[in-house]
Amino acid sequence: MTPYGAPQAPLSVALNVNENTHPVPQHVADDILDAIALALREVNRYPDREFTALREGFADYLGHGLERDQIWAGNGSNEVLQHILQAFGGPGRTAFGFAPTYSMYPLLTRGTGAEWIAGTRGHDFVVTADDAARQVADARPDVVFLCAPNNPTGTPMGLDVIEAVYDATDGIVIVDEAYQEFAPRDERSAVTLLPDRERLVVSRTMSKAFAFAGARVGYLAADPAFIDALRLVRLPYHLSALTQAAATAALRHAPVMLSMVDEIVAQRERISATVAALGYQPYESWANFVLFGGVDDPAATWRALYDRGILIRDIGIPGHLRVTAGTEEETTAFLDALASVGSAS
Amino acid sequence: MTPYGAPQAPLSVALNVNENTHPVPQHVADDILDAIALALREVNRYPDREFTALREGFADYLGHGLERDQIWAGNGSNEVLQHILQAFGGPGRTAFGFAPTYSMYPLLTRGTGAEWIAGTRGHDFVVTADDAARQVADARPDVVFLCAPNNPTGTPMGLDVIEAVYDATDGIVIVDEAYQEFAPRDERSAVTLLPDRERLVVSRTMSKAFAFAGARVGYLAADPAFIDALRLVRLPYHLSALTQAAATAALRHAPVMLSMVDEIVAQRERISATVAALGYQPYESWANFVLFGGVDDPAATWRALYDRGILIRDIGIPGHLRVTAGTEEETTAFLDALASVGSAS
Repeated sequence: MTPYGAPQAPLSVALNVNENTHPVPQHVADDILDAIALALREVNRYPDREFTALREGFADYLGHGLERDQIWAGNGSNEVLQHILQAFGGPGRTAFGFAPTYSMYPLLTRGTGAEWIAGTRGHDFVVTADDAARQVADARPDVVFLCAPNNPTGTPMGLDVIEAVYDATDGIVIVDEAYQEFAPRDERSAVTLLPDRERLVVSRTMSKAFAFAGARVGYLAADPAFIDALRLVRLPYHLSALTQAAATAALRHAPVMLSMVDEIVAQRERISATVAALGYQPYESWANFVLFGGVDDPAATWRALYDRGILIRDIGIPGHLRVTAGTEEETTAFLDALASVGSAS
Repeated sequence: MTPYGAPQAPLSVALNVNENTHPVPQHVADDILDAIALALREVNRYPDREFTALREGFADYLGHGLERDQIWAGNGSNEVLQHILQAFGGPGRTAFGFAPTYSMYPLLTRGTGAEWIAGTRGHDFVVTADDAARQVADARPDVVFLCAPNNPTGTPMGLDVIEAVYDATDGIVIVDEAYQEFAPRDERSAVTLLPDRERLVVSRTMSKAFAFAGARVGYLAADPAFIDALRLVRLPYHLSALTQAAATAALRHAPVMLSMVDEIVAQRERISATVAALGYQPYESWANFVLFGGVDDPAATWRALYDRGILIRDIGIPGHLRVTAGTEEETTAFLDALASVGSAS
């Protein structure tokens, strides 16, 4: 076995792990630092085990009348998902997702002793409500992962699919909205489906839209009884006082952070248009990255870009590569380098 | 089931969870804040997955020629211990410890599906080498926890016991030195036993001696191959950039932090002498707390202290209570309150 993890290479244009390549604006960083300075005054004490202020911040941010007793958080969304699997997975249980999807789901599932079941996607990686419900009903999983929009393909997922899957199972249904902020603004989040669905969970992260990958903050919204189940498996004091202070302060600047999202979405659309013009086949993406096909030799193209100082991701789908939408300059550097490598066959 | 966790009550003198009640000195906090400010400039990027600088800091701090490839860290020592159990515990495996000991060990063990086996201690909670080796040989556990000094009793454990237990098992032997810095300065750490013992692990925390409970930083030293095994179970990027920056900066001030330890040890000795004078039976402690027996009704005494604004811990051993050594003022407040409650019977 080898540990999970994308290569960490010191290239100047790193568009491989779907980070938000915009630094946190200085005035936001200053406010975060002030909050951390306050937290340091009592860092000799254990942190608030219930991270009350942070849960209130997430409830306010998500809106739709959510209350803090419907919120959970962890050191990155991976830990939040791990908490769910520790509570509802384990030996003899199964978890299901539509492949290709986020590669941590099977690892987290097997880490608790549960079995991973891979469902299938249709044309262009799209999943329809009827097909999804049929696959889930057949598999009878204890936990279903719906990555919406999907990583690594960027594929949107309609709320009708989520509703159909929920009705097709008695298990936990997790909608992983790590990239939801990059979807069209008028699209509804699965958070709007939470009322009267006590087995539905919507997970999020601050790593992407909030440019906070280094701070490791993931969270979710669900029924209060579901949150209580997660309290049984979390390590006591799992969220540090510094993390709580930093995340709570960053949430207060949500409008500024979301304005960076608009810029990233513009670069994503530019990537899609330009790689198509170069003869590749980009997939519709509601995330901060673009998957494109029509790559004869992904390893060779990846290497040619690497040699030009551009790091993107070969995610193991034959004929495909994935690139994160960076700043305008980074995106230009990628597109120029890709053009210099030569057009698709 | 109910979640683990001591009561968090807003009393002015909180001596219940073995925190270091001395705040981090201002000039140390300033240095930590400068390090965090630097980390915030790149917080949009994922952190160093290998936390290289932090591991080097721990290796330097522990000394004895340790190198960074012998170091691991996590969000609190509980997470570090959980990583060990995820790698070496699990269904069909067993973990062993000498009861009473740190109450998280059985919870962490069962959390991976392994079984917990409780050994016994002799007079005054002491474990001897012969008895320890015999119990471990009989139990044949996959993982042994040796809490040295022991929580919640404070009992020292000789290196001869650790050597005897190591020789009596083919399993992993974890020496939990969470409170090691409060032992007499001339006593050797189990770190000195690491050479040629590839199954031996010594875990530590910054929560106690470094007054860093709020920052959630635990770590361990072991053979490099053992560290590689932990890489397989850790979540990617489990240590945030802020945590890495804060801990690395704090380690640079180890001499200042350890001078607070001397003050705490002085208060611990004062507690032991005074509760003995009041007729209670304190146990020898090499930690930052004192367990004392001879309490007729621990719940009533706990409540009487609570009503006087003093929070200590009823850890469930009949006739006993545990108190953390606080600042001189906090310790005085506790001792005065205990005296006013009345002497032991």
